[in-house]
Amino acid sequence: MGQLTGGDPSLLRRINSAVVLHALRATDCATLTEITRVTGLSRPTVEGVVEGLIEAGLVVETAADEGGARRQGRPARRFRFRAEAGHLLGLEIGPHRVAALLSDLDGRVLGAQAKDVGAGAPADERLDRLRGAVAELLRRAGVARGSLRAVGVGTPGIVEADGTVRLGTALPGWTGLRLGERLGRSFRCPVLVENDANAAVLAEHWKGAAAETDDVVFVLAGLSPGAGSLIGGRLHRGYGGAAGEIGALHLLGREATPEALLSTTDEPLHPLDEQAVAEVFALARDGDLRARAAVERFIQRLVHDVAALVLALDPELVVIGGWAAGLDGVLEPLRRELARYCLRPPRVALSLLGEAAVATGALRLALDHVEEKLFTVDGTLTRR
Amino acid sequence: MGQLTGGDPSLLRRINSAVVLHALRATDCATLTEITRVTGLSRPTVEGVVEGLIEAGLVVETAADEGGARRQGRPARRFRFRAEAGHLLGLEIGPHRVAALLSDLDGRVLGAQAKDVGAGAPADERLDRLRGAVAELLRRAGVARGSLRAVGVGTPGIVEADGTVRLGTALPGWTGLRLGERLGRSFRCPVLVENDANAAVLAEHWKGAAAETDDVVFVLAGLSPGAGSLIGGRLHRGYGGAAGEIGALHLLGREATPEALLSTTDEPLHPLDEQAVAEVFALARDGDLRARAAVERFIQRLVHDVAALVLALDPELVVIGGWAAGLDGVLEPLRRELARYCLRPPRVALSLLGEAAVATGALRLALDHVEEKLFTVDGTLTRR
Repeated sequence: MGQLTGGDPSLLRRINSAVVLHALRATDCATLTEITRVTGLSRPTVEGVVEGLIEAGLVVETAADEGGARRQGRPARRFRFRAEAGHLLGLEIGPHRVAALLSDLDGRVLGAQAKDVGAGAPADERLDRLRGAVAELLRRAGVARGSLRAVGVGTPGIVEADGTVRLGTALPGWTGLRLGERLGRSFRCPVLVENDANAAVLAEHWKGAAAETDDVVFVLAGLSPGAGSLIGGRLHRGYGGAAGEIGALHLLGREATPEALLSTTDEPLHPLDEQAVAEVFALARDGDLRARAAVERFIQRLVHDVAALVLALDPELVVIGGWAAGLDGVLEPLRRELARYCLRPPRVALSLLGEAAVATGALRLALDHVEEKLFTVDGTLTRR
Repeated sequence: MGQLTGGDPSLLRRINSAVVLHALRATDCATLTEITRVTGLSRPTVEGVVEGLIEAGLVVETAADEGGARRQGRPARRFRFRAEAGHLLGLEIGPHRVAALLSDLDGRVLGAQAKDVGAGAPADERLDRLRGAVAELLRRAGVARGSLRAVGVGTPGIVEADGTVRLGTALPGWTGLRLGERLGRSFRCPVLVENDANAAVLAEHWKGAAAETDDVVFVLAGLSPGAGSLIGGRLHRGYGGAAGEIGALHLLGREATPEALLSTTDEPLHPLDEQAVAEVFALARDGDLRARAAVERFIQRLVHDVAALVLALDPELVVIGGWAAGLDGVLEPLRRELARYCLRPPRVALSLLGEAAVATGALRLALDHVEEKLFTVDGTLTRR
């Protein structure tokens, strides 16, 4: 990148700071000469920018411990990005549990904490459990609350840009909840709320099964299935934030819900009773005919939902997560049926992150937010 | 826009040319003073750029016909964009007809020509009919072939970036056809091939039912249904160009094809026999019970396909086109059913362009290509 001249000096300073930070973050530590070479900035500019970043607490001079260099005269000063200058949280709020992940500014995970919560617990109780998990996590890690720079949250439902849950039938009291605002009271940093499947697809793209592709659909299989999509590496939320809410695709008939299909009696399962689901799958593996038929019906429904997504979006890859991720039996029928019904069948893979996908994606949201603030100038990422 | 200083002089000239062209195109004609004001460029820069554009044939000085100004001394010279400096074609290749639209560089339509072709006609015959239509259209409009700057083409099937039809079951001999290359031999300008539903959504966004929204799904209803989507104003083609190919969503059962659902006998209709379809609809309107049941089945299938798209993508608007656009009866059931099944039901509208949608969208493709060349510098549109 060439040096910029003229124009708004404060804008220039911000651009140059972002460029230097980016260069430092890509390496363990670097000398001023190395930064000058990598960034294309002048030596005096780099010196001024590094000085400012040290004052801001984002960069520190490392100990000159290279004995070899020392002997040859004054050693070159080396600098590194202070990933410990701030911290991030990734939170999951699900039907059965709440979970929290803590990381530094490089996204390196420093600790995790999860707590069970009843499927029928009201919103207040669910949020209390989450706050408890966060407090425990921060205490164990020895991280002050004031060090948090951003908090990401993944939860079922249609989430609006301001963090309000417009529609969330999976959790009691969730529809209409101003989740971002409620959680915001516990933190002095931005709180970013996202649909759970959307968070999960970010996670699989970051460090999971979708690391190699920018066009991926993540299916959060379960009794209330949903999906999150990346198109060209960007999250596709839809016009009203409802993209991927395939759980509503009951057009096969009112009765074709997972809980009805998976029932081995005349009564459907309870929509959130994953234990009952596990039992049906276990019975099927043991050869129980009614259970096998039920699993078969469920897989057909899943194939149908996934095929609808694939035909609409044409992704390179479909990642199956949620509790279905524990089922070895799902992948093969999915691949076979998608090959039958889709003009260009995508690759199909299981989630690599499993249970951690939603909280990890929420952490990625927080990291994205901080990176955007640190490394972005006027909306343009300086990533090269 | 402020004046740029320093840097690569030829890049600057191109930026300034694009800025001036853009300003001139937004108005009938303008004086150098007006261009200077609108663009923020200096007077000498504007003079130099306009001179260059006149040499390139893209700008012309208009006759100074304002008597009032003349009397007050030497009238200010006025300039205009020469939309007639080049021409564009939008072509449709369908199962039953081929069609061509001719426009100037502003996209103003100068003429149209269509020819019927048999549904079973081989590819060579279909292309010959199209070439015939184009030759007639150019002759009637008095436009030389060498004046064409770009040709857009809309056709059923999955189309690759190089204009090859990867899969096209609606037309005989279409799969594997190097359509872009074949048509390219007839023109000395770029030929851009696109899936017909993708072309149609561009058209409705340009001058049809979707002019007000950037998040729209166009459903080309018919015996071989397909869909095209804009996400944030950009065409979503999918990873392999197969996005929106909902015609393959036969998961309701192998027999749930439109031609089977719409049959009033035990035999399905011929997949491309739109005349037979029209008869079923006419019978239904006249109260024939079997025909009404068939239409009802067809609408249920259409609702299902559209719901799948809506749940996956969450568009603001769904536009229904293709031959179903002639059916007043489709909209109400669609709205009612989508409201039942979708968490955030989109608006539903009929195509405004009807039969002209695909060729109009193909013309828009050609216009986009030319605008990108005229008004883009290093990938950044200068539109403001």
